[in-house]
Amino acid sequence: MKKLIYIISFIFLGTICFAGNKQTLDNEIKGGGVKMILDLDTGIDDAMALAYALADPSIELIGVTTVFGNVATEESTTNTLNILDLLNCKDVPVYEGADRAIGEKEKYIKSSRSVHGNNGVGGVLIPKSSRTAKTKSGSDFIIESARKYGKDLVVVAVGPPTNLTEAIRKEPNLKNMVGKIVIMGGALIVKGNVSPYAEANIFHDPVGSNELFLNGTPLTMVGLDVTLRTLLTKKETKKWRELNTASGKIFADMVDFYINAYNKKSPKLQGCGLHDPLAVAVAVHPELVKVLNLHMQVETGGEAIGRTVAITEKLNDPNPNVSVCVDVKVGEFMKLFMNNLTGLFKAN
Amino acid sequence: MKKLIYIISFIFLGTICFAGNKQTLDNEIKGGGVKMILDLDTGIDDAMALAYALADPSIELIGVTTVFGNVATEESTTNTLNILDLLNCKDVPVYEGADRAIGEKEKYIKSSRSVHGNNGVGGVLIPKSSRTAKTKSGSDFIIESARKYGKDLVVVAVGPPTNLTEAIRKEPNLKNMVGKIVIMGGALIVKGNVSPYAEANIFHDPVGSNELFLNGTPLTMVGLDVTLRTLLTKKETKKWRELNTASGKIFADMVDFYINAYNKKSPKLQGCGLHDPLAVAVAVHPELVKVLNLHMQVETGGEAIGRTVAITEKLNDPNPNVSVCVDVKVGEFMKLFMNNLTGLFKAN
Repeated sequence: MKKLIYIISFIFLGTICFAGNKQTLDNEIKGGGVKMILDLDTGIDDAMALAYALADPSIELIGVTTVFGNVATEESTTNTLNILDLLNCKDVPVYEGADRAIGEKEKYIKSSRSVHGNNGVGGVLIPKSSRTAKTKSGSDFIIESARKYGKDLVVVAVGPPTNLTEAIRKEPNLKNMVGKIVIMGGALIVKGNVSPYAEANIFHDPVGSNELFLNGTPLTMVGLDVTLRTLLTKKETKKWRELNTASGKIFADMVDFYINAYNKKSPKLQGCGLHDPLAVAVAVHPELVKVLNLHMQVETGGEAIGRTVAITEKLNDPNPNVSVCVDVKVGEFMKLFMNNLTGLFKAN
Repeated sequence: MKKLIYIISFIFLGTICFAGNKQTLDNEIKGGGVKMILDLDTGIDDAMALAYALADPSIELIGVTTVFGNVATEESTTNTLNILDLLNCKDVPVYEGADRAIGEKEKYIKSSRSVHGNNGVGGVLIPKSSRTAKTKSGSDFIIESARKYGKDLVVVAVGPPTNLTEAIRKEPNLKNMVGKIVIMGGALIVKGNVSPYAEANIFHDPVGSNELFLNGTPLTMVGLDVTLRTLLTKKETKKWRELNTASGKIFADMVDFYINAYNKKSPKLQGCGLHDPLAVAVAVHPELVKVLNLHMQVETGGEAIGRTVAITEKLNDPNPNVSVCVDVKVGEFMKLFMNNLTGLFKAN
């Protein structure tokens, strides 16, 4: 039975991936296609972000770079490859990126087991990919793609933004070469999720994140201020499970683990935050959010390490480089998210 | 010479106060007048807020309530009476309010000497008023006025909002009886000014401020997020000094002390924050600011005591009670501020 499902999935997967490519080609002809690199520390919400990027017809995912955070970098690479295969998108290349924060001597081996499970995907067993990551590093792939696609390229980093900081260290012009850079990270108007001050991605690389804020990189910051408004519940995952497809079942199991962790940690929220998928959606649908344009900084020491806050002395400075999302059209995003993901899971 | 200036001032003062009253009467006839109670911990920027409320023709200042903060409550009362007399507005009654934070056993005797001077007004000697405060308490005057004027009343609290919290404890309906309540206090998107987390007014009564946020009082919060964008320099105070009037000279001396304190404490700002006057202006010219509507809370303990932050679990709740100002039309406000204050000082 399982084998049959996989066979059916393979047939469907070709359809969806082709549909995706067709859309891209159409968009390229019309000039509307958006080439995207997704930087992931995969992670359950990273898995949903990856699915979203594959499913939204306005995105052409040209590659994934991996980083530490929810899991160690190697685990992020493994999980990414497995999920791409599960979703029958074996043509999307994966490039392994930084394995530790900027300035850190030790390789990152911690991970958020209680939120993302022992293997980063809620303890769910995903069929193992036969592929491996490319030999090029994550930051080098970002630089190469920026040179190739320029303003047509969007980079969305939903883990600690270490690969971005490294890429800009190597190629300082990068920040103005690409069309848009979006990060999931930070908390401006609400408390953090790993401390009263800090959100996890920024907390895991405060120095690298601060460098990115201060070196003038034009950024859209999708932080807890908006991602904790977009909450998914078991009502939605039930729909995926009922599709009776491999990906529908696996994603429902993964995300239920994530929802259970949220129910335990933040019972008042009544759902799990769609952090990483929202960042991907905002990159191509900026009308979903309201932003404040600010010069931002990150606390790099003390009790508030990882806190993201506007720079008081620069409140009146022209051309602030960070657009901080402070409100989101929840209903519109949730509809977009569910339509895209349910469509993808139905076919795989 | 001094006497001559005072005599001339008295003649002019009649004119301005009358002009003020006339404007009020006109506004009342047209239905456009705004009755305002100003709650002050006077304080140099409180003095400017008081001058602004007297000068802006869209405001009819029906009374001042006093509180601790920049100085002890008695000093706030003395300074308020002296400044009202200096500005020839002896008909504005003053009601002494709370002398300590909600839940505090000890009377507040500290003060911000380094920022506001030994006497709270930059060490400047202001001729002593012959008046005293009314016997009614600050919170009772607020309640009485709310019952009398209802939606026509605006309350602007620019010190710790203790009198407001006390008034609402005594008359819970107050929060929905009045037209608008504006507080100067807090910091949402920038760091604090008494700690990396807390703004001074909220820091001085974190429990009382938190009660005000949580009891559902509709509030406009004018915090450091906007007040540190509206900066006054000695270029402006020079204009007041050159008016050669008693009030022009005294205000120039007071505010120069304040600017010097800012230059020492926050040299990068290049000016002093117009905290309290901006709150008064926003009360009658809401088009000056951009707001975020949020459910807010105050940290009441720990290192971050006094921090104002949105409540994560209520991000999606309907009808948030706090409109937090996050941006301001700096040029428009500065013009309004200077026109109003220079006009007032010219005549007094």
